[in-house]
Amino acid sequence: MGATVCRWGILGAANIARKNWKAIWNAENATLTAVASREPARAKEWLEANQAECPFPTAPAACDYDALLKRSDVDALYIPLPTGIRREWVVKAASAGKHVLCEKPCGPDATELRAMLDVCKANNVQFMDGVMFMHGKRLPLLRSVLDDGETVGQIRRIVSNFSFAAGDDFLKNNIRVSKEMEPLGALGDLGWYNIRFSLFAMRYALPTTVSGRLLTEHASGVPLEFSGELFWPGGVSASFYCSFNTELQQWAHVSGTKGSIDVRDFVLPYYGCESSFVADKPVFNVKGTRYHWESHPKRFAVTEYSDGAPDAQETNMVRTFSALALGKTPDPFWGDVALKTQTVMDACLASARNGGAPVKV
Amino acid sequence: MGATVCRWGILGAANIARKNWKAIWNAENATLTAVASREPARAKEWLEANQAECPFPTAPAACDYDALLKRSDVDALYIPLPTGIRREWVVKAASAGKHVLCEKPCGPDATELRAMLDVCKANNVQFMDGVMFMHGKRLPLLRSVLDDGETVGQIRRIVSNFSFAAGDDFLKNNIRVSKEMEPLGALGDLGWYNIRFSLFAMRYALPTTVSGRLLTEHASGVPLEFSGELFWPGGVSASFYCSFNTELQQWAHVSGTKGSIDVRDFVLPYYGCESSFVADKPVFNVKGTRYHWESHPKRFAVTEYSDGAPDAQETNMVRTFSALALGKTPDPFWGDVALKTQTVMDACLASARNGGAPVKV
Repeated sequence: MGATVCRWGILGAANIARKNWKAIWNAENATLTAVASREPARAKEWLEANQAECPFPTAPAACDYDALLKRSDVDALYIPLPTGIRREWVVKAASAGKHVLCEKPCGPDATELRAMLDVCKANNVQFMDGVMFMHGKRLPLLRSVLDDGETVGQIRRIVSNFSFAAGDDFLKNNIRVSKEMEPLGALGDLGWYNIRFSLFAMRYALPTTVSGRLLTEHASGVPLEFSGELFWPGGVSASFYCSFNTELQQWAHVSGTKGSIDVRDFVLPYYGCESSFVADKPVFNVKGTRYHWESHPKRFAVTEYSDGAPDAQETNMVRTFSALALGKTPDPFWGDVALKTQTVMDACLASARNGGAPVKV
Repeated sequence: MGATVCRWGILGAANIARKNWKAIWNAENATLTAVASREPARAKEWLEANQAECPFPTAPAACDYDALLKRSDVDALYIPLPTGIRREWVVKAASAGKHVLCEKPCGPDATELRAMLDVCKANNVQFMDGVMFMHGKRLPLLRSVLDDGETVGQIRRIVSNFSFAAGDDFLKNNIRVSKEMEPLGALGDLGWYNIRFSLFAMRYALPTTVSGRLLTEHASGVPLEFSGELFWPGGVSASFYCSFNTELQQWAHVSGTKGSIDVRDFVLPYYGCESSFVADKPVFNVKGTRYHWESHPKRFAVTEYSDGAPDAQETNMVRTFSALALGKTPDPFWGDVALKTQTVMDACLASARNGGAPVKV
């Protein structure tokens, strides 16, 4: 009988990793063995703070990056390193036989990501990007409603906005505006979700053409605010907007021949015990000189705590990844959708760098 | 003492004119004198049906177009004629000293509209396009919230969708897919509202650049589905989508540095006694490994019946126009915003006809 618990290591003690620490702690098929940091003192402090809140029976060890890769008691690595240096460590991790859960944007471009995926494939390890919403309980319900043929019908237009107002300190010092560390800026950090959601809605069909627009750029040359548009055959399209300049919003809207669906919090469900979306199929009502439009909204929801709970989307991500890692047969789906996301992003950026002219994907 | 009631004529017995018949009937400073149609029998039938439902003390007369222009008991004309032939009659009406309430899109392009406006100006008559939402009670509230400096802060991104699923009969026979009668198709019929709303939000500052995309075209060459993007200095932008292929939706979303506003029914408030919008300023809440986003929606509403009522937006439009016509001093604002709307639309279409390349406005 094979192992039933996937043993994790975290390569890079980033803030986002605090959330995944708890997700590993919550997932019944996962445990955390070790955490690596460039600064051992920092790793130790970080470990102790997390262990105090979510204690593993055996406290995870602190080590450096190379030592983590050599540990035989680690099956899977969560790698939240900056995009600019991630490839090296993804390649080393896969070469060492470790399964890789990789933060997004996976690479600075699709060529780099393809190189990472090739190494994962050659070493028979699972690759997945850390897009938590893909693992929420809401998504299968959304899929079934999108596919029911009645609520939305054939999809014609997708719109999504994802932004937060970063503030002066962030815009001066945060890694996400560093050309070397995060060359894709807001497009990589936020637009990754917009593009992924659009691809999800379209059942992962690649658009044939895209356009993009750099609305504002950091002095470093990193995108701070970006809009893009994706075009599929038959006039189907998706528009997206992502920004570090604009207050938090994270909505997506899908409209089609028969109605539309509105998701107000597609990235991270707003605090509460339900994740929901609303479908609408308005009615045109005519009586003589009188006519009006009626809204007929219908709410769909799943029970799902959004805040580090055992059924939160990040816990499900760890749960699903752990099962794949334990199963020994990598699922190519996750690498494929990451590569599609990055490919579309590359084309949007190429369009923007060329004044907004459409670019074939 | 001057007249206190504006005497209206309707030039063209179109369906939309039924709504304005009732609006004239509701407005205390307006009455209806005569209705002109190319087919006198049709005008008579149309008159009787409307008079049965909303009876004026003296039943409006039926006449032909030229006779209507010659009547001395008509101050203002509502002209819902097709765009392809409207210019001729707007020019004749203004030359005859009649004030002109003109359906949208006002002309096939800004050059035509400018010619119409010049004649109105030369004859000292009021010009206004028939954009009813401009006259709703919700708009001043929306303006004040957009300008309060806190709810949205500085505007960064506007998104609006306006569509309805036209159906086979419409797509075969309706005037709105006729190249001669309505050359702008869905862009003129629906996109006019998207562009106007975006300009309203931006206090009527013209964008410096736009782009456009013809997503689907009718066999006649008329736009059936169109997306556009407007760009202002500093990276501020607006995206819009309009379509005859997609089920009814009419929403607009404005986001800025401090929050956002969502209007689900910006064109015609959904049936009910309130017109509303919702502002949101989500909060990022961090506690140790736990963090979540909280939605803090706040609803704003005005009491306003949407269905042919004395305070409905179309009644206010007639009321406002009648007061301007009676006042003898035309307000140039309405011609200006119509011209700006048409100018932006022209540029979007020019971009679309040039493969989506950005066009300076």
